[in-house]
Amino acid sequence: MTDLSVLTSTIEAIRPASARTLQEAVAAMDDKVKPLGSLGRLEDVATRIASLRGRVDLPDPTPAVVVCAADHGVASLGVSAYPQAVTGLMLTAFGGGGAAVAVLSRAAGARLVVADLGVIDPPAVPGLLDRSVRPGTANSALEPAMTVAEATLAVVHGIGIAHELIDDGVDLVALGEMGIGNTTTASALTAALLGRDAAATCGRGTGLDDAQVAHKVSVVDQILARHATSGGSDDPLAILASIGGLEVAALAGVVLGAAERRVPVLVDGFITGAAALVAARLAPASTDAMIAAHLSPEPGHALQLAALGLRPLLDLEMRLGEGSGAALAINLVRSAVAVLTEMATFASLGPAETSPVA
Amino acid sequence: MTDLSVLTSTIEAIRPASARTLQEAVAAMDDKVKPLGSLGRLEDVATRIASLRGRVDLPDPTPAVVVCAADHGVASLGVSAYPQAVTGLMLTAFGGGGAAVAVLSRAAGARLVVADLGVIDPPAVPGLLDRSVRPGTANSALEPAMTVAEATLAVVHGIGIAHELIDDGVDLVALGEMGIGNTTTASALTAALLGRDAAATCGRGTGLDDAQVAHKVSVVDQILARHATSGGSDDPLAILASIGGLEVAALAGVVLGAAERRVPVLVDGFITGAAALVAARLAPASTDAMIAAHLSPEPGHALQLAALGLRPLLDLEMRLGEGSGAALAINLVRSAVAVLTEMATFASLGPAETSPVA
Repeated sequence: MTDLSVLTSTIEAIRPASARTLQEAVAAMDDKVKPLGSLGRLEDVATRIASLRGRVDLPDPTPAVVVCAADHGVASLGVSAYPQAVTGLMLTAFGGGGAAVAVLSRAAGARLVVADLGVIDPPAVPGLLDRSVRPGTANSALEPAMTVAEATLAVVHGIGIAHELIDDGVDLVALGEMGIGNTTTASALTAALLGRDAAATCGRGTGLDDAQVAHKVSVVDQILARHATSGGSDDPLAILASIGGLEVAALAGVVLGAAERRVPVLVDGFITGAAALVAARLAPASTDAMIAAHLSPEPGHALQLAALGLRPLLDLEMRLGEGSGAALAINLVRSAVAVLTEMATFASLGPAETSPVA
Repeated sequence: MTDLSVLTSTIEAIRPASARTLQEAVAAMDDKVKPLGSLGRLEDVATRIASLRGRVDLPDPTPAVVVCAADHGVASLGVSAYPQAVTGLMLTAFGGGGAAVAVLSRAAGARLVVADLGVIDPPAVPGLLDRSVRPGTANSALEPAMTVAEATLAVVHGIGIAHELIDDGVDLVALGEMGIGNTTTASALTAALLGRDAAATCGRGTGLDDAQVAHKVSVVDQILARHATSGGSDDPLAILASIGGLEVAALAGVVLGAAERRVPVLVDGFITGAAALVAARLAPASTDAMIAAHLSPEPGHALQLAALGLRPLLDLEMRLGEGSGAALAINLVRSAVAVLTEMATFASLGPAETSPVA
C-alpha cells in the first residue's frame, strides 16, 4: 500500500462513538451511590470513553505517552528562546528519565515512547524510535516546510506508532512533542486551519517578551502570506506540508490511528492541539477519541479547543509542552474510568428509602 | 492532659513554613531542564510542600484519605435531598469499597481511614474508627449543636487521628466527610466565621431546587440568629460548638495535627473547607499546610478559599463531597513532588550554550 492509501483507509475506518453505549454508560453512572451528576466532568470523561470503546465494563486503562520530535527550519529566524540544538538535547533527557514528561509519565505509571520524525542531529538514545522523514523542515517563511509526500509519510508513521502501541495492549494514548520553534509552526497552522490571523494565535511560547512575540507574529504573517501566494490550498494535508511540522504531522497520525481503533487520546497543549485540528479536519469523527488534558496559556490553544468542541480537564498554567499536561491528566482519566466500573449502586447497598427524597 | 490542653499545645506548636527552604526549593526548581516557571502551579505545590517539610529532597508522599462522619440535628428540618439514614449507609459503602471516595482513594494508591464522630446509627463496618462524641448534634436552629467540651473532644480526636497516621508513615493527608445535612452546617459556620449572610454561603448541596435552597437559607438564618441571641461569641471553638458539626470539628483537628507535624493537607470541598477555616482561625500558620484540591460549586467555597488564601488545583464541577476531590488531587501532588525531586538540570545534560538565549 502507498502511504496515501494507508492514510485514506485509516480515515475511512474512523466512525463516531456509539450513541447507544453512551446511553448505557450514563444510565450506569446515574445508578451509582452518589447524587446525580455529582462527580461532574469525571462522569463525562468516563461515559465518553465507554461510548468510544463501545462498552461500559471498561478495563483500567493501560496508558502510553507518545512524544514526537522534529526540528523546524523557521527556528533560524530566532522565534524561540532556545537554540535548535535543544531539540536533540531534550531527546537525551527523555531517554535519561529526567525530562518533565519522563518524570510525569513515570508518576502516572505510563510507558513513554519517543519518536524522531526529523531531528537535525539526533543523539544516540536507547529506545528512541527512528521515524525520521528528513532532517528538519525547510524554513516555512520562505518555502514549503516539506512536500505533501513527506507530510503523508510522517502522518503514516504516526498511525503506525499508534497501531503498534494498541496491538501491544495500550488503550489510552497521551500526546507529547519536542521541537524548538514549534509554537511558531503551530501558530501558523492554527491560523491557516481556523482562518484566523497571526496575532490571534501567537503567544509567548517557552518565554518570549513582548518584542519577541511581535517578531513571532511577523514571522507567522510571512508564513501565511507565502502559503497564500503559493496557492493557499485549504486541503489539510497541503496546509500541513506547506507549514509543518514533521512531529505535528506524526501526532495527527497518532490521533487518527488511535481513533480508528477507538482508543482515547489525551491531547496535551498547543502543539498537539494543532495536530488534533489536522486530524479533525481529515476525519471529523476523530474528535470523539480526543480528551483535552489541560489549557495552555498560548492564546491559540483556546481557539483550537473551541473548534474541536473540547473542554480541558486541567488549568494549572503549564506551558512546557513535551506532553507534560497530557501525562498529568492520565490519572484523572483512570480515576474517571474507575468511578464507572468500580462504584457501587444504591440498590446494592440497602433499602429503597435511601434514595433521594426529592 | 485535658482535651483543652492537648488542643492548646497543638496550636502553640504550629509554626509557619520555612522561608529559607522555600528559597532553596525555588532555586532547585529553576535549575530544572525546562523554561522558568513553565510547570506553573505544579511548581508552586512542590515548593510549598518543601517549605512546609523543611527539606527539598522530598520522598514520594505516602497518602491517606481521612473521612470523618457524623449526623446533624438540623437535618430534621428537611435541608437535604437525602434522609439522615444515608450517613450510616454510606459508612457501609466506604467500608465495602464502592463509594466514590473509596474508589478514588484506591485509584490514587491511598489508604482510606473512616472515623465515626457521631453517626446516630453506625453500621458494623470493619476498620471504622469509633470516635463517637455523641449520637449526632442537636438541632442548631433551636439550640447549640454541642457543648464546647464536646467540640473540643472532637477536635482532639482529629488531632489524634492525624498523629497516628503520621506516626505510621503517612505524609500527605486528604480530608473527606460524610454527614447528611452538613452543607447547611458548613454554610452557617462559614457565614459566622467570615461575617457573611446566609444567602452568600448557601448552595444546592447534593441537589436542591430553588425552593429548597430558599428553605436552607431560612434555616441558616435561624441558626445564625439563635447563635447571635445566645451571646454570639466569635471565639472559633465557641462558634464550632454552637453551629456544629462533630465531623467538621474533627477535621479541623486533623488539619491542626498535620500542621503541627508539618504534613500537607489536601482540603476537599465546602465541608472540609469549613473545617480548614476553623483550623486557620485557631492557628493561622496552619494555612501553610493546606492545599486546596478543587473548587466546589457551593458559593461559600470560593469565600472560604479567598479567606484562606488558597487556589484550587481542580475545577471539575464535582459536588459529591466525601473527599472525592481531595482523593483525585493526590496524584497531582505526587507528580508535583516528583518534578522537584526527579527532574534533571540543564547543567547535568550538556554544554552551557543550551540555556535560554534570552
